[in-house]
Amino acid sequence: MVLKISPLSPQKVQELSPLPGVRIATAEAGIKYKDRTDLLFIIFDKPVSVAGVFTRSKCPSSPVEHCRASLPHGVARGVVVNSGNANAFTGNKGKYTTNEIICAAANTLKVRKNEIFIASTGVIGEPMDASSIVNLLPSMAEIAKEGNWLEAAKAIMTTDTFPKLATCTFDCGGEIITINGIAKGSGMIAPDMATMLSFVVSDAGISSTILQSMLSEAVQSSFNSITVDSDTSTSDTLMMFATGKERFPCLTCKADPRYKIFSKHLSALLHELALQIVCDGEGARHLIEVKVIGAMTNDAAKTIALSIANSPLVKTAIAGEDANWGRVVMAIGKAGVEVDRDLLMIWFGQYRVAVNGERDPEYCEEAIGAYMRGKHITIRVDIGLGNGMATVWSCDLTKEYVMINSDYRS
Amino acid sequence: MVLKISPLSPQKVQELSPLPGVRIATAEAGIKYKDRTDLLFIIFDKPVSVAGVFTRSKCPSSPVEHCRASLPHGVARGVVVNSGNANAFTGNKGKYTTNEIICAAANTLKVRKNEIFIASTGVIGEPMDASSIVNLLPSMAEIAKEGNWLEAAKAIMTTDTFPKLATCTFDCGGEIITINGIAKGSGMIAPDMATMLSFVVSDAGISSTILQSMLSEAVQSSFNSITVDSDTSTSDTLMMFATGKERFPCLTCKADPRYKIFSKHLSALLHELALQIVCDGEGARHLIEVKVIGAMTNDAAKTIALSIANSPLVKTAIAGEDANWGRVVMAIGKAGVEVDRDLLMIWFGQYRVAVNGERDPEYCEEAIGAYMRGKHITIRVDIGLGNGMATVWSCDLTKEYVMINSDYRS
Repeated sequence: MVLKISPLSPQKVQELSPLPGVRIATAEAGIKYKDRTDLLFIIFDKPVSVAGVFTRSKCPSSPVEHCRASLPHGVARGVVVNSGNANAFTGNKGKYTTNEIICAAANTLKVRKNEIFIASTGVIGEPMDASSIVNLLPSMAEIAKEGNWLEAAKAIMTTDTFPKLATCTFDCGGEIITINGIAKGSGMIAPDMATMLSFVVSDAGISSTILQSMLSEAVQSSFNSITVDSDTSTSDTLMMFATGKERFPCLTCKADPRYKIFSKHLSALLHELALQIVCDGEGARHLIEVKVIGAMTNDAAKTIALSIANSPLVKTAIAGEDANWGRVVMAIGKAGVEVDRDLLMIWFGQYRVAVNGERDPEYCEEAIGAYMRGKHITIRVDIGLGNGMATVWSCDLTKEYVMINSDYRS
Repeated sequence: MVLKISPLSPQKVQELSPLPGVRIATAEAGIKYKDRTDLLFIIFDKPVSVAGVFTRSKCPSSPVEHCRASLPHGVARGVVVNSGNANAFTGNKGKYTTNEIICAAANTLKVRKNEIFIASTGVIGEPMDASSIVNLLPSMAEIAKEGNWLEAAKAIMTTDTFPKLATCTFDCGGEIITINGIAKGSGMIAPDMATMLSFVVSDAGISSTILQSMLSEAVQSSFNSITVDSDTSTSDTLMMFATGKERFPCLTCKADPRYKIFSKHLSALLHELALQIVCDGEGARHLIEVKVIGAMTNDAAKTIALSIANSPLVKTAIAGEDANWGRVVMAIGKAGVEVDRDLLMIWFGQYRVAVNGERDPEYCEEAIGAYMRGKHITIRVDIGLGNGMATVWSCDLTKEYVMINSDYRS
């Protein structure tokens, strides 16, 4: 099946500038796809700091297990990523495959095995042959060059219809710092990651401990606040690397004023990548932003927001450009947290549709109808009970989602 | 939109025999639909016992609130049900509408207001005018007659493609007893009810307290074990009535040996109605049965079973007749309860597809492919950790589900 580019894709692909000491190569390993790249090798010329956040699935893939186990070492020298096969639920064969790839990469770069990180995305449960990857790594190391970020983003795509990249450059305590990130993912997207892979690299010098702290914080309002279909993958991986640079003394404690500056920009960059994933949600034609305020707690607000954002009936209504706020009421009611029906207020965009336990007296079908034909729909709910708030992002549920996912494996 | 009859509909509509003293009338009130009945009036000539189970939504409809409040009185004389408008989230106007209908029915039958029960199903949030219903009730009371069950089942349909009826007749302690039931529902179906209405009547004599106990038990393995789209409605209502008959001394305690006999048949009947709802799941083309065994507890088993049964990716794979058990692994992993990836076993029908943390060595795509083209797909999972078990039923997620729900309101 040939997928059309999502109508929500960014107008223009961002150009990411090269980062010194970060070399990238891609190749066609032929794992599943024909006539496209499916293998990415990121090489760090010197040891770099590393942090990661992974799926909470109780059935994680073998690559995820390797990364988790290697993270405490706190040093990265290379990352190998393939698309087309997730090497998940592949038992001992899968562990063997992971180990072969890790060994080949470590030998190629002459580094330790726990300095190589790995991620695989694609079909679950199919045994994966390591040889096509292993054979390519030495030549990839030779041709790898600084830059190449767009090629990197393309090589890790599965059902994605556009490559996902983001970059920012900012002054961090007197030195200009860059963060580059790529991501993939369009289905099996839910909080606590998704079939979502993302790799982010900065030229800042940051200790692995501090990098982990920043990453874990920044993920909450970005990758952990998006949902396409409520399905959490076995393979979700977000990794961050910091190379360090000369005039930027290594950031090693939270009290350093640069912590806040860097965190702010990292959060914005992850948010940008996360939204690109939602905008490429399988079959998506509308981006949905769900803002909940006035809940008893922030957690309660997030539970309600996700109940709305994951409801198939809300999502199909948005696909039909129908301001069916009754289904929003339904989704609020089923969330299971404390609400008072008669205190709720609901808006679509600037239009309040419900108040005092019933339809807003000012409700105007025509005005809202015009709003619903836009690409970006905001659903805002005031629970009216407290100060808890949360925002999550989702996309609509279209016939194309079903088509893509009925046909994907066969 | 004209909906085609579900390919999973029963071959033959069941014929329900009349119950003495239970009179039924239907009418065209024109609430939303044209040229079809949308109003049902069930009249009990004498006071009968009553029990009910309702939605757990925190935003219940006004009719649900009335029924809940009236239930402790323990006596029913009439039931009014309309389709086309749920009278949910309609604020004070909605309460007023409910009260008007209740008063009209009570006056017509010359009974107390809390002996009339009411249910409404259809669009949420649209104010509903009581007058068309109120005006019809007196003439309906005149023409109501014993029997008419098929007409009753038809009048309460919304997006249902076939009427849902079930009946059973059995020996209960020496006396032949009948239970008749009708139901409606095809979307917004999830455990803890759904936009599901069901009304069940028996000619047995059973106290309201005991009837409630039986109903609450029987609902667990039937209506609380089905899911179409994980969306719980504001209006779910299951009510049961027992008229009593001469040679059947009233059943008033659990120790009565007839309790078990009656409960067994009631459970089977509710199960049959619940499966009819799943088989009419919006756009459904496959019935999915998910059996989980070997979990740590029954609750854990049900959580896992529902995670599989609600997963859009599992449901679209079944729609594509694809034995994509990798998505089953994903759904098990995201359920959040204790599992050990390497102990899992998964079957599609009789075909074991996964064992020892990987694909079954005997896996044969062709054999399973033939099985997947059947209408009834069983997914069986052995968690391998304990004795907890649960079974739930769902249906596949097709393009038709999206079409139906994108277009429903407009």
